[in-house]
Amino acid sequence: MLTANDPNRKSWLNVPLDSDFPIQNIPFGVFIPYEDDATTIGTRIGNTAIDLSALHQYGYLDGLKLPEDVFLQDTLNDFITLGRPTWRAMRNRIAELFDEKNNELRQSEEHCKHILYGLHEVQMLMPVFIQDYTDFYSSREHAENVGTMFRGKENALMPNWLHLPVGYHGRSSSIVISGEPLHRPKGQRKPKDADAPVFGPSQQMDFELEMAFITTDGKALGERIEVQEAEDYIFGMVLFNDWSARDIQAWEYVPLGPFLGKNFGSSISAWVVTLDALEPFRTYSPEQKPAPLDYLKSEGKKTFDIELEVLIKPEGQEESKVCHSNFKYLYWNISQQLAHHTVNGCNVNAGDMMASGTISGPTEDSYGSMLELSWRGSKPVALKGSGSRTFIEDMDTVIMRGHCKKEGIRIGFGEVSAQVLPAL
Amino acid sequence: MLTANDPNRKSWLNVPLDSDFPIQNIPFGVFIPYEDDATTIGTRIGNTAIDLSALHQYGYLDGLKLPEDVFLQDTLNDFITLGRPTWRAMRNRIAELFDEKNNELRQSEEHCKHILYGLHEVQMLMPVFIQDYTDFYSSREHAENVGTMFRGKENALMPNWLHLPVGYHGRSSSIVISGEPLHRPKGQRKPKDADAPVFGPSQQMDFELEMAFITTDGKALGERIEVQEAEDYIFGMVLFNDWSARDIQAWEYVPLGPFLGKNFGSSISAWVVTLDALEPFRTYSPEQKPAPLDYLKSEGKKTFDIELEVLIKPEGQEESKVCHSNFKYLYWNISQQLAHHTVNGCNVNAGDMMASGTISGPTEDSYGSMLELSWRGSKPVALKGSGSRTFIEDMDTVIMRGHCKKEGIRIGFGEVSAQVLPAL
Repeated sequence: MLTANDPNRKSWLNVPLDSDFPIQNIPFGVFIPYEDDATTIGTRIGNTAIDLSALHQYGYLDGLKLPEDVFLQDTLNDFITLGRPTWRAMRNRIAELFDEKNNELRQSEEHCKHILYGLHEVQMLMPVFIQDYTDFYSSREHAENVGTMFRGKENALMPNWLHLPVGYHGRSSSIVISGEPLHRPKGQRKPKDADAPVFGPSQQMDFELEMAFITTDGKALGERIEVQEAEDYIFGMVLFNDWSARDIQAWEYVPLGPFLGKNFGSSISAWVVTLDALEPFRTYSPEQKPAPLDYLKSEGKKTFDIELEVLIKPEGQEESKVCHSNFKYLYWNISQQLAHHTVNGCNVNAGDMMASGTISGPTEDSYGSMLELSWRGSKPVALKGSGSRTFIEDMDTVIMRGHCKKEGIRIGFGEVSAQVLPAL
Repeated sequence: MLTANDPNRKSWLNVPLDSDFPIQNIPFGVFIPYEDDATTIGTRIGNTAIDLSALHQYGYLDGLKLPEDVFLQDTLNDFITLGRPTWRAMRNRIAELFDEKNNELRQSEEHCKHILYGLHEVQMLMPVFIQDYTDFYSSREHAENVGTMFRGKENALMPNWLHLPVGYHGRSSSIVISGEPLHRPKGQRKPKDADAPVFGPSQQMDFELEMAFITTDGKALGERIEVQEAEDYIFGMVLFNDWSARDIQAWEYVPLGPFLGKNFGSSISAWVVTLDALEPFRTYSPEQKPAPLDYLKSEGKKTFDIELEVLIKPEGQEESKVCHSNFKYLYWNISQQLAHHTVNGCNVNAGDMMASGTISGPTEDSYGSMLELSWRGSKPVALKGSGSRTFIEDMDTVIMRGHCKKEGIRIGFGEVSAQVLPAL
């Protein structure tokens, strides 16, 4: 029998060449058909959105013993709490049902009509309810770039950076789904050499290329999740744009960290790709020197080879690629991040989101923010055609895409895209 | 007619002398009777817990046109979203119903049996579901004390501090109700002069005396709440112990702020006291120089005169008061905090919690943390009997109490109390 990851499996649903969503992906998301008023949980093959609550209702998932209403929900949270064995059983069943050799569903035109939608027929919604959102700072290249800019090359990395995955809490309420525009934030900034701060729209609107993982329910308050078991508590991943207003952030962040420079909004991609789908793309993280403390020791391939890119699309113009990076550059992996987060007994819940921090690579074209790409605004980044950018301008759309590729199989995240509207 | 705040109103329910909960308080909370399995929303007069869902079911609240199940909930969130006019109407109706001259409910022994409980007959639960929790840093005395310790008197206040209410995001999941013990957290700390960090239980477990306000749903993402309207979005307040592991925090917090030094747990008092109940205790905040930017300008009495105290109770010993402070010392008031938080378009939701930061006063006995009281561990604080403390030891219980008093009326918050258990 073919496994869900087998590269030879094909689906009876059409999958365009170079799609991020072959039958080996099977991501989870939430959508509402435009011609209906019931939100449902779904998956996607090619450009077909699959209504899992309808699939369940028609009995195609009966072998899995799922709660009756688990897909008739506004978010994936309840499904996530069922745990990895259920996620995996669902994945296997969907792979089987949509295999080109399987006629169970395919033969029923009536059922297909109520289960399958073109992507253009549905609106994607936030996949999870996020109680707590954490942002890490796990790219050494990013930390060194920013450190060099603000403190010089000698003191670029803070003394703690190589010993722990630095992280901080962010705002959950303002995380929105790909496609939702955001207004440029207003706030305080202190112009160089000014005596006092001024108020107004941010002059340094930036993106941060990140990815985020989503957890399931962890242990009780007081207990910790160890590195070796961390992946059992991770449901999947999304692309994450950690929008940043650099001028607001620079003035406010000492000593308690970023606040209004970040919490006006973050954008995520719509489909959550499970760790099972990413399995074939496991790879090693950079060597860690000095060796981390025991509770952070990590062995084997604990990260993933995910190609990432960022594009800027000024209104009415074509998009320009400004960054090409890879998730595998991160110094701290997701298992270490989750183990560190809980080592003090902090509890995590299904739907919690933990972002990576800006994913910069070793070369100048792999930096994951305009702050680095334009080196604090000193080197404008050329766009296709005539324009250039030091930071993001009103009406610009920023698009991030990510995918893995190996032995003819491509598993991707689609994109996270959002337009910046003028300040209100 | 008497208003709900009238000091002359008395209840037919017994109210002990010096109770925090006379009929003028009418706080809101969530409890479950030990001999029942239905969680309910309630209020409290004296030492009587009042089941509001039963009260509603028997028709005593019919004039208010409330949703049928609004009190049959696990949290106050739905009730809070009904908005200030409804909070106020509820307050007025409860004041009327329990007025010593009112016999409506009093005359029905049967109804009273299902509505009234002794406090010892119920277990208090978390009053709200908190999606996002923010912690401010709004006590000038606290910021100056900490700044002096770490950077010297000349550079005590950061350049931004007098221009904006510094704040950061915290962890919602680990906020627990008074009475729940917490384990001492483990984590990394870097001993002075050591080459590398070590791992183990925190050696500097501390409390922070704070209060927190709870919001209702705010405006859409992108819009802001102004200082002048901020109180319309604030439901009420609780006592807040922002537990802090100073050694973990000191090593981790640069440059992105506190993380594991805080998120192992915070404790709140059980009863939410509304701003309407605090109305008679309004007072002025300290003068703000330099004048804040326009969006932070605040006029009139926008804060409250709330006496606060912290007590340490070693196991098997009596409690010792170690701090006596007041909410009115805060430099930034709650309206300014909320206006600042949303000025960039950040959205807030019902149940969000925003804590004040440590509330230290001008005198040494008014400092709101052991860090300040023991001046970084250099001056042990004597306890009643024989012991002393620089930081909090295992099995110690820390208790915070708060109340307002004026013209014979005392409105209080009860207490937030939690014992520190050894690290797991």
